[in-house]
Amino acid sequence: MPHTTAFARNQWYIAAYGTEVGRELLARTVLGEPIAFYRTEDTGEVVALADRCVHRRFPLSHSRLDGDRVVCGYHGFTYDTTGTCVYVPGQKRIPRTARVSSYHVAELDSFVWVWIGDPALADRTTIPRAPHLADSTHWTTVGGMEPIDAGYGLLVDNLMDLSHETYLHGGYIGTPEVADTPMTTEVDEGAGIVRVSRHMDDAECPPFYANSTGIKGRITRWQDIEYHAPCLYLLHSRIAPQGVLPNPDGTDPDAFHVEITYAITPSTPDQVYDFWAVSRDFGHDDEEMSAFLRDFNHEVVMQDVNALNLLQKTLESEPAGYQELSINIDTGGLAARRILSRLAAEGDRSATPDNVAR
Amino acid sequence: MPHTTAFARNQWYIAAYGTEVGRELLARTVLGEPIAFYRTEDTGEVVALADRCVHRRFPLSHSRLDGDRVVCGYHGFTYDTTGTCVYVPGQKRIPRTARVSSYHVAELDSFVWVWIGDPALADRTTIPRAPHLADSTHWTTVGGMEPIDAGYGLLVDNLMDLSHETYLHGGYIGTPEVADTPMTTEVDEGAGIVRVSRHMDDAECPPFYANSTGIKGRITRWQDIEYHAPCLYLLHSRIAPQGVLPNPDGTDPDAFHVEITYAITPSTPDQVYDFWAVSRDFGHDDEEMSAFLRDFNHEVVMQDVNALNLLQKTLESEPAGYQELSINIDTGGLAARRILSRLAAEGDRSATPDNVAR
Amino acid sequence: MPHTTAFARNQWYIAAYGTEVGRELLARTVLGEPIAFYRTEDTGEVVALADRCVHRRFPLSHSRLDGDRVVCGYHGFTYDTTGTCVYVPGQKRIPRTARVSSYHVAELDSFVWVWIGDPALADRTTIPRAPHLADSTHWTTVGGMEPIDAGYGLLVDNLMDLSHETYLHGGYIGTPEVADTPMTTEVDEGAGIVRVSRHMDDAECPPFYANSTGIKGRITRWQDIEYHAPCLYLLHSRIAPQGVLPNPDGTDPDAFHVEITYAITPSTPDQVYDFWAVSRDFGHDDEEMSAFLRDFNHEVVMQDVNALNLLQKTLESEPAGYQELSINIDTGGLAARRILSRLAAEGDRSATPDNVAR
Repeated sequence: MPHTTAFARNQWYIAAYGTEVGRELLARTVLGEPIAFYRTEDTGEVVALADRCVHRRFPLSHSRLDGDRVVCGYHGFTYDTTGTCVYVPGQKRIPRTARVSSYHVAELDSFVWVWIGDPALADRTTIPRAPHLADSTHWTTVGGMEPIDAGYGLLVDNLMDLSHETYLHGGYIGTPEVADTPMTTEVDEGAGIVRVSRHMDDAECPPFYANSTGIKGRITRWQDIEYHAPCLYLLHSRIAPQGVLPNPDGTDPDAFHVEITYAITPSTPDQVYDFWAVSRDFGHDDEEMSAFLRDFNHEVVMQDVNALNLLQKTLESEPAGYQELSINIDTGGLAARRILSRLAAEGDRSATPDNVAR
Repeated sequence: MPHTTAFARNQWYIAAYGTEVGRELLARTVLGEPIAFYRTEDTGEVVALADRCVHRRFPLSHSRLDGDRVVCGYHGFTYDTTGTCVYVPGQKRIPRTARVSSYHVAELDSFVWVWIGDPALADRTTIPRAPHLADSTHWTTVGGMEPIDAGYGLLVDNLMDLSHETYLHGGYIGTPEVADTPMTTEVDEGAGIVRVSRHMDDAECPPFYANSTGIKGRITRWQDIEYHAPCLYLLHSRIAPQGVLPNPDGTDPDAFHVEITYAITPSTPDQVYDFWAVSRDFGHDDEEMSAFLRDFNHEVVMQDVNALNLLQKTLESEPAGYQELSINIDTGGLAARRILSRLAAEGDRSATPDNVAR
Repeated sequence: MPHTTAFARNQWYIAAYGTEVGRELLARTVLGEPIAFYRTEDTGEVVALADRCVHRRFPLSHSRLDGDRVVCGYHGFTYDTTGTCVYVPGQKRIPRTARVSSYHVAELDSFVWVWIGDPALADRTTIPRAPHLADSTHWTTVGGMEPIDAGYGLLVDNLMDLSHETYLHGGYIGTPEVADTPMTTEVDEGAGIVRVSRHMDDAECPPFYANSTGIKGRITRWQDIEYHAPCLYLLHSRIAPQGVLPNPDGTDPDAFHVEITYAITPSTPDQVYDFWAVSRDFGHDDEEMSAFLRDFNHEVVMQDVNALNLLQKTLESEPAGYQELSINIDTGGLAARRILSRLAAEGDRSATPDNVAR
């Protein structure tokens, strides 16, 4: 039942764009854990603290910052960047146990990543990369984030099979060829990566690309998905006039490339953060094109949001044990579910009473 | 506890007015089963399919029609009028098990009836009739439908005892005589029909009838209820100047007759569709009278809707095992409950694993 | 877990201001019991009846009064002031068991008190007093009531520790000295009274008092809480120019006194009525001051309402067994919880099948 996909705890998750975190507390719930984010005054480092005061569990995200310290908005319990309580009202002695959890964070490729699981296992070098997001010389990016009232498994399903573009996003990014062209799927079980490719040799050009690239007539369209379970999803999109292929040396000057990035961050069992970004290697200074791509892709994202909100409600009202029927287009999605299931089981095994009781 | 009256599965239910079903998919949930309705292009026959795609259970009512076929709005799975899947994206072979349930329907007396239970038991000749609704020569009809957030048992209770007209609908259709005049009740257990009659010899004329019939002064008012459990409720209403009775041969030229039809269709355990229609044998071309009766009766229906919404919420918040106290006016309602309970038990008995596992 | 504090049944509770009860039925739910209040026509005595018709449990608060009788808005069952049914529709005989519970009430100090528990234990002489509310010669009072979507324990916590004034109500009634000054706590377990005092010798004057008293400069500020569990909370507030103390004989002509009264009435397990009143012994005819104190204190109350609504939602989403950390400021609150817990246990013990089955 994908609307209640288990959480994989010992993994890095994207909690925010770096630009969202500043000197106001930002509340995000990741894997069911409420977290308050902010930046320190001098170094601008991102701090992530459990969003619950130790005193009466008031959300610290409704607090104010005093320098780098968080002052609880209810009774003034004050915490430093490590989560240690440094002030309580009405007395000098601060209880030894007065501290809130702090979380490992990493800022990478424009995202703020957070580690929810066993702190001892947090290893920043394992974070998958989306370098185009940080490379504004070669790539121009627009993006946003939408929360969806659906389990994150439904968003994984959605993104792993793009044949839905033809039906849910017809007139935007879908054309008949997307649904009709078979895909190839490669699964790297060990690395937790699923690759799904669909190469269309002769396809209609949907408005999204016709308007941005200026191509008139039919196109060669490649969609190469690279899903780094559980959180990062990259879609390498290549658009060229029909028949135009890369050079033998790999250069590809006559094609348009768009990197479409999604972050799939489970918030609660029935809510997911849907981060999305569209990066192009053309028209860098074209503000109008940026506005078009931002607005147009936002509409596409909202079509998904509305469909998944509806699907979640539908599944919740279904009798237990309802059936699905999978076909070839689901190969990538089923591989992703299998990997997520394994990662979730691994996360549970490593959860010792100590780090669970936080 | 009437707010959770059991469903009687092997019965015909009114799902829609015929005029509501066309070339857009109409979603209705009957006895907890989500169904999508539409008409075929050429013959205009009504098709009723289970409102869940076999692939990922997306509601088919959010799909579009391609001729007589339903094309799922998410990934394009396509079904014919029998529910058989005839297209899936990305491959030629269609899985043998790819089909959704279709339901028996019957169009009769302006209503679309649907059969939810064991298909082998569906017999159109057992559908109770409301012929006045199809007879526009002798009857002029106005009507509508309101969903109520209450179990269907509360609507049955409401309609079987009209003494509430005096209190809930005072100033509309109720007068003191309705509550004060005793009723007679006849129950045909075998046929599942309850008849409740209240004949008032000398009564005030409520605005509903004063305005439509033009009678000034007191009236003779007959209310003869005929409830065909579980779904169809007929109220034969006769209004005449005080003392005017039918002729010995049964003709009744000096009285005004109004047939008030309700369909009580359980949607979910705590929602019911309240179809209502008012048919008169006078003032056939009087558009103003039609508008008055439609608006006025809609207000009356909304008084019931609001009262039952409130009552359902009230009952849900009551401690388990709350008590009711029944008196004479409840004789018809209690008989109806008894019949519904028997019909529900019969429906459960006939449910074999085969037709349940649909 | 304070958001689900048990109810203490055998206690008096404030259900309304006397001015709220009149010739329209007023619905209030106290300790989970829905009650309809009204005044009799001649004597103006307050009547409190169970808010559920015996027939089908329709809320009597949606009824109309006929003299001193309540006529159910659904089918007209009619009750006298004792809850005895005196009319049913369609028949002369009234069932012997047709009655709804009536509750003991007492009107005292501007409040309507109601007794929910064992009627045999209701003793009006045990009701705690707030005489300033009835003494308009010496005290001028403004007030209101706000329902909060939180268990009543959260409001008790809130009011027993005023150090939150500094953080939640900064710029209104809080200053740094409130949080910094230690409190003294006295508990009378037998009488169920908790007293918490905080005397600030040299404090900033917050806008609430600066604007109403006209004092410029620093103040001596006393806060003496007297909580009569479970329902009545009195805060004796004394404001004087810094260093001004009462005379040895107890007179205190150079200080300003404000009696702040709260009633904490549990409605459901997760809703509480927050009655509040501000009585002053100065500026009696100053309408502008009354308006200022009413508006300003309403804003303060809404800061609490918003914080407790948020805190309740937060606690409901917490995993079971979450921890709190208490410090000195919580001494009064913890004492209150202990007393409430004992009163709840006593109420349960005295609940015999007879008075529970009402």
